[in-house]
Amino acid sequence: MTPEPDVLRKTVDAYVQAVAHGTVDDVLALYAEGATVEDPAGSEVRTTEASIREFYAVLEPIEQTSELLTCRIAANTAAFHFRLTSHFGENTFEVDPIDVMEFDDEARITSMRAYWSPEDLKQV
Amino acid sequence: MTPEPDVLRKTVDAYVQAVAHGTVDDVLALYAEGATVEDPAGSEVRTTEASIREFYAVLEPIEQTSELLTCRIAANTAAFHFRLTSHFGENTFEVDPIDVMEFDDEARITSMRAYWSPEDLKQV
Repeated sequence: MTPEPDVLRKTVDAYVQAVAHGTVDDVLALYAEGATVEDPAGSEVRTTEASIREFYAVLEPIEQTSELLTCRIAANTAAFHFRLTSHFGENTFEVDPIDVMEFDDEARITSMRAYWSPEDLKQV
Repeated sequence: MTPEPDVLRKTVDAYVQAVAHGTVDDVLALYAEGATVEDPAGSEVRTTEASIREFYAVLEPIEQTSELLTCRIAANTAAFHFRLTSHFGENTFEVDPIDVMEFDDEARITSMRAYWSPEDLKQV
């Protein structure tokens, strides 16, 4: 059975927090087995846990904050706009992609596709 | 060849305007032959021109305004957050979905999937 919208929203909230503040394990715990990640859309789809782990491992050591700006739920899917702010010493960069996720019956992410391009990355 | 991001953005702009102010033909002109429409995500996918025409025909007579809030382009896809405001006499309703579109090499829409739920429809 498709989880209630509020349950899916909690996974989205947890994801946005985990990407900024969590470990790779915190992020991976939100994914179902066999999940796929395509970030950005049009790039090679990551289909193994190792390749998804590699993707998030890049973010783990960065000092970051995040904010969920808009989240829309439809059936077992969510589309959401969020802002990720990364600090490198005195330099701060912002990117605010739109991500689309599908979920299984336990509200674990089965697929993630992120919509953004390098031009959306801004120094602030 | 994938159109430039600015070209895809123009189709998105034209779509957001046509949905509010245009005729069904104006909207359909932005779609490629064989396009699909799933609005909201999780509902039956419309795969024929007749069924897509039927979908937009409902919107044509309504007095509406629209605004593109955020648009993210990645490869041949766009994800965008927009607001559609509908006036029925003295009553005004707002909905601001996130739509995801794929485009062909001529920047015509080959698929549209809209993320929103009835709870997102607000009287303002």
